[in-house]
Amino acid sequence: MAAQKGDLLSYRPDIKLLDATIRDGGLVNDFRFSDEFVKALYETNVKSGIEYMEFGYKASKELFKKEDFGKWKFCDEEDIRAVVGENNTDLKLTVMADVGRCDFRKDIIPKKDSVIDTIRIATYTHQMPGALEMIEYCHELGYETTVNIMAISANREEDISKALELVCASPVDVIYLVDSYGSLYPEQLRKLAYEYCNAAEAVGKKVGIHMHNNQQLAFANTIEGIACGASYVDATMSGMGRGAGNCFMEQMLSFLKNPNYKLTPTLKFIEKYIAEEKAKGSVWGYDVPYMLTGAFNRHPRAAIAFIKEQKTDYSGLYQDLLYEIS
Amino acid sequence: MAAQKGDLLSYRPDIKLLDATIRDGGLVNDFRFSDEFVKALYETNVKSGIEYMEFGYKASKELFKKEDFGKWKFCDEEDIRAVVGENNTDLKLTVMADVGRCDFRKDIIPKKDSVIDTIRIATYTHQMPGALEMIEYCHELGYETTVNIMAISANREEDISKALELVCASPVDVIYLVDSYGSLYPEQLRKLAYEYCNAAEAVGKKVGIHMHNNQQLAFANTIEGIACGASYVDATMSGMGRGAGNCFMEQMLSFLKNPNYKLTPTLKFIEKYIAEEKAKGSVWGYDVPYMLTGAFNRHPRAAIAFIKEQKTDYSGLYQDLLYEIS
Repeated sequence: MAAQKGDLLSYRPDIKLLDATIRDGGLVNDFRFSDEFVKALYETNVKSGIEYMEFGYKASKELFKKEDFGKWKFCDEEDIRAVVGENNTDLKLTVMADVGRCDFRKDIIPKKDSVIDTIRIATYTHQMPGALEMIEYCHELGYETTVNIMAISANREEDISKALELVCASPVDVIYLVDSYGSLYPEQLRKLAYEYCNAAEAVGKKVGIHMHNNQQLAFANTIEGIACGASYVDATMSGMGRGAGNCFMEQMLSFLKNPNYKLTPTLKFIEKYIAEEKAKGSVWGYDVPYMLTGAFNRHPRAAIAFIKEQKTDYSGLYQDLLYEIS
Repeated sequence: MAAQKGDLLSYRPDIKLLDATIRDGGLVNDFRFSDEFVKALYETNVKSGIEYMEFGYKASKELFKKEDFGKWKFCDEEDIRAVVGENNTDLKLTVMADVGRCDFRKDIIPKKDSVIDTIRIATYTHQMPGALEMIEYCHELGYETTVNIMAISANREEDISKALELVCASPVDVIYLVDSYGSLYPEQLRKLAYEYCNAAEAVGKKVGIHMHNNQQLAFANTIEGIACGASYVDATMSGMGRGAGNCFMEQMLSFLKNPNYKLTPTLKFIEKYIAEEKAKGSVWGYDVPYMLTGAFNRHPRAAIAFIKEQKTDYSGLYQDLLYEIS
């Protein structure tokens, strides 16, 4: 274990905020955001001093039908440019590409022709060779890259260490610690964060943190993770994201002391656009079913289905989950 | 700092859960719970294996009018007995009495004549002599006592240490670490929890923890606090409590591994009674205004008023709070 980095009254210039509202929030509404929402979010991120904005996925058009999703499932270059023009701002733009669910050789163009700055490669530990191939490819095209190793709470420690070793030997810039199931308790998170940070620092890489709120621990785990040395922080407006959602951007802007960060533009965005998104019927956030899948260290799909069907028989869901485990 | 107590797969028999739903939740609905709600909650606590249930306050009938509140503001002996009879169960019963807002010499009767087991004395640091007088009085009447030193996030460390010294020299059984404003970050909470636990252990007392959820840290801080050695844990059903509410009882039952604890009765209570309480219009839980007062280390009253008036101008509230501080 290393010593705590930073304290509560100063700020660490190495910390960068990444707004993942369109990408993780797109999992709530099938990426059907209004153009006005996306444009307002872009302007909000610029005004708030947030360093990165993620637009969505580069998903395969062979595997997914265009008509089943909004445009941010695919993030075509011209759709991003329609929002940001040449993006003459300090805000860096990212997209995510899932190993095995994208046609990266076709859909990711050389950096010099793109407004995108950073490609985030999402992988499970069992897909590491595919992830490494994509990291190499995107790096050679000229992009900054991150690797987001998902669902590690369900992995054996040995596999996590091996995956870390592999990505540390790759040209990736940032290695993300991801709690896909919202299952990690702070004492587990700290142990992993120190392992990631020690491995990454030794080879000059950074560590990012992406938490889910199934057990109302997304904010706590995020600030504990940065105290352990993580410096890239994923958050979304009011936590909008799959299931229980993510770490809240307004909480991070309120917590971090970097004078570049401005809370007011983000609060104004929430007042108007998050309120409208909820009024449209988008549902996310902590609820009993997510607490149960989080505590059981399970994918939230059973909880998502339960809530979509507007069920409230929590004790029945608990029995079902117990039965599935045994 | 001491070493962590306990781990994630075993359980500590010293940990006791206290259901504060009627008391802290009563601050949401002026203690106007239906008799059915209170009876069902009592039965739920017994079935769930929860160790303590708090009924409400012993408030002064001189200072507060009976007609302005439900009966749990006053907790008359006969009202508790109407729910629990002789309480022939393992569940211990508590009430809270605020220094300066109760007539303890009149309203607290000898333990031998009461079904109440434990008197919880709530105090600010500036009221310590009054708290010590009440501790002595209740102890001599035969009760177990706890002292809940409130709003310490707004106190100087020197005053907190002095207050600890005073209560450690008193006959009180349990000393509660209370985050009234939901303002403490885990790194601050741990430091305080170790200070409380070291002081209490030296004189054979226990430490309790009572957190608020203004920054979505109630559960995180509670489990961090017990890892530091606290053993009495306040929680409420679905976090029902003033403003942003408390630590969620269902999360504690899901987290703790004591085989006496049963989650199902608590989930059934939530499905029916918490849903009904919300349908009646009771509002509590994390929201932007509470995040702001928590981050500013302020009493949540401005946030409570803002939400009661159904305002959503978060950026305006933020400016108001900034102005008040400066």
